[in-house]
Amino acid sequence: MSQPSQPSQPPQPVPVTEANVAQFLQGVDAFVCDCDGVLWTPQGPIENAMAALRALRACGKKVYFVSNNSTLSILDKLKAEGFPVEEDEIAVPATVIARHLQQAGFTKKAFVFGVEFFKNVLRRSGIHVVPEERTAALVDENISRCVEQIDLDPEVGAVVLDVDVNIRYIDLCSAASILKSRPQCLFLVGATDTLFPLPSEKIAMAPGPFLKLLEDITGRRAEVFGKPSPAMVTDFLQATHRFDLSRTVFVGDALKQDMGMANACGMQKLLVFTGVTRPRDLDSCPAELLPDFVMDSIAAFARLLEAHPGGPQGPQGPQRKD
Amino acid sequence: MSQPSQPSQPPQPVPVTEANVAQFLQGVDAFVCDCDGVLWTPQGPIENAMAALRALRACGKKVYFVSNNSTLSILDKLKAEGFPVEEDEIAVPATVIARHLQQAGFTKKAFVFGVEFFKNVLRRSGIHVVPEERTAALVDENISRCVEQIDLDPEVGAVVLDVDVNIRYIDLCSAASILKSRPQCLFLVGATDTLFPLPSEKIAMAPGPFLKLLEDITGRRAEVFGKPSPAMVTDFLQATHRFDLSRTVFVGDALKQDMGMANACGMQKLLVFTGVTRPRDLDSCPAELLPDFVMDSIAAFARLLEAHPGGPQGPQGPQRKD
Repeated sequence: MSQPSQPSQPPQPVPVTEANVAQFLQGVDAFVCDCDGVLWTPQGPIENAMAALRALRACGKKVYFVSNNSTLSILDKLKAEGFPVEEDEIAVPATVIARHLQQAGFTKKAFVFGVEFFKNVLRRSGIHVVPEERTAALVDENISRCVEQIDLDPEVGAVVLDVDVNIRYIDLCSAASILKSRPQCLFLVGATDTLFPLPSEKIAMAPGPFLKLLEDITGRRAEVFGKPSPAMVTDFLQATHRFDLSRTVFVGDALKQDMGMANACGMQKLLVFTGVTRPRDLDSCPAELLPDFVMDSIAAFARLLEAHPGGPQGPQGPQRKD
Repeated sequence: MSQPSQPSQPPQPVPVTEANVAQFLQGVDAFVCDCDGVLWTPQGPIENAMAALRALRACGKKVYFVSNNSTLSILDKLKAEGFPVEEDEIAVPATVIARHLQQAGFTKKAFVFGVEFFKNVLRRSGIHVVPEERTAALVDENISRCVEQIDLDPEVGAVVLDVDVNIRYIDLCSAASILKSRPQCLFLVGATDTLFPLPSEKIAMAPGPFLKLLEDITGRRAEVFGKPSPAMVTDFLQATHRFDLSRTVFVGDALKQDMGMANACGMQKLLVFTGVTRPRDLDSCPAELLPDFVMDSIAAFARLLEAHPGGPQGPQGPQRKD
């Protein structure tokens, strides 16, 4: 009797090691690095991550950055940690949404759920952000008077949602009212993560749950600019730098957001274990989100490329120790 | 050839008219009336609704009240409009949840999303409500410092959700953290309506969307005390008054919440068209939510019972005009 055919196994992720790093780098022109969980964590910088970036750059690789985190300046953070980059080598939802609105000739007001840093990125691009000022006033508990505070500002032409730790009931009602009653109003979202990864049992919501709430009650679907959408790479980094995506490695710590974005862009996938994913998580990972390569930490490049100074395309060419 | 069997039609709702009101009332000991959309609307009282209640009471019928609205005193409103009732003849989620916690010997703190009126009902029942005071203070936009404000108060033993027009991000995070990390913590919800019915294009959220958000991110399921749950009738009104549910008519204006609650309690269903439902809505109504009886307004009882003073069980017995 013939054996029943076995379901084909997806190719297993390849650890990048001293033995294969030269071959690995030969197929790569550029790296696109996620930041949180790859270069640093809430506890601080990941040791030797910057040394690894410098080593990659030293052997001729381009290094770009993407992050769903529009709450701080990644430019300043990289500079402070000793890896200076240009502004257009970093993509976060705030800058990509600002560019998107500019290119669309958007001149109306944007109703924004976001932290001040996010809103200032939009403001610097000439976008009129409302509510003008963050208010801490309580809303009248009488429903009729509360409803009067729901603001259907006719000049609002976009609702933009990103991380906002001061989301209020009344603003959600205003945004929902505008989205539902004005089908031509844009609905844009940056990060779609559900929760911030926290070491404690505390739950801190990212924009995901509020996106779902607004989509459910309005019947609208937002256009996504954060990972796993390819927009930060294809609409922003690629528009300026035009690197070959098939010869680009995306370095990330999250399966759905990072490996998913790499898939959406056609990049090679390198997963590191310094963030939200543990090696055992790969056992239950959908085949399409499995990385091509794995490393404990991006920092390993510092050590691996020390053994291969200049890397395979560097001045000394590839060297093997063995 | 025999005809293919037709799908059986559900029985169609019977309009209560002068011709059948006497027969209708013979099968009824008590009425349970919804309030918003039946006795009054946001625009004011429904004309002759109180006269109708007085006429029903005059012909020996008991009249009780239920409402998902715990934001105001229905007792005071009925008194002011000339239909005095006892406190235990009115059920709203606030009073039913307070009774539920008392009967469970609950002595911990309750983390409550609700308006002051709702919270005061709980406080008067001896329940320690947190947050102690409503604050609108802004939360630090630095995520790490924001997370410090997520409050895992170990004394909280229940999260209670009802209408709250001042819901804040940070309180949702605290409640979610408590619910997720403390499986024994009670999770109780009053009204589960999605939106307040408004005459304008404004969208004002009721607790429903926030219930869904908390359930989604915690994996918990709340115990529901508002309509269409039977709790307000079976756990509260019935506990004191013990009327025969099969001889009780529920008067409501909403298909899902009101007819659904009547089904859950085994009451007869009377739908009025002074609230959120229009006659044409019955065409697309699931069979199980179809009312037994319909009237344009509860006010019609005032006119119908004027023609039958005392009603069928009143001093003069049933009278037919024809």
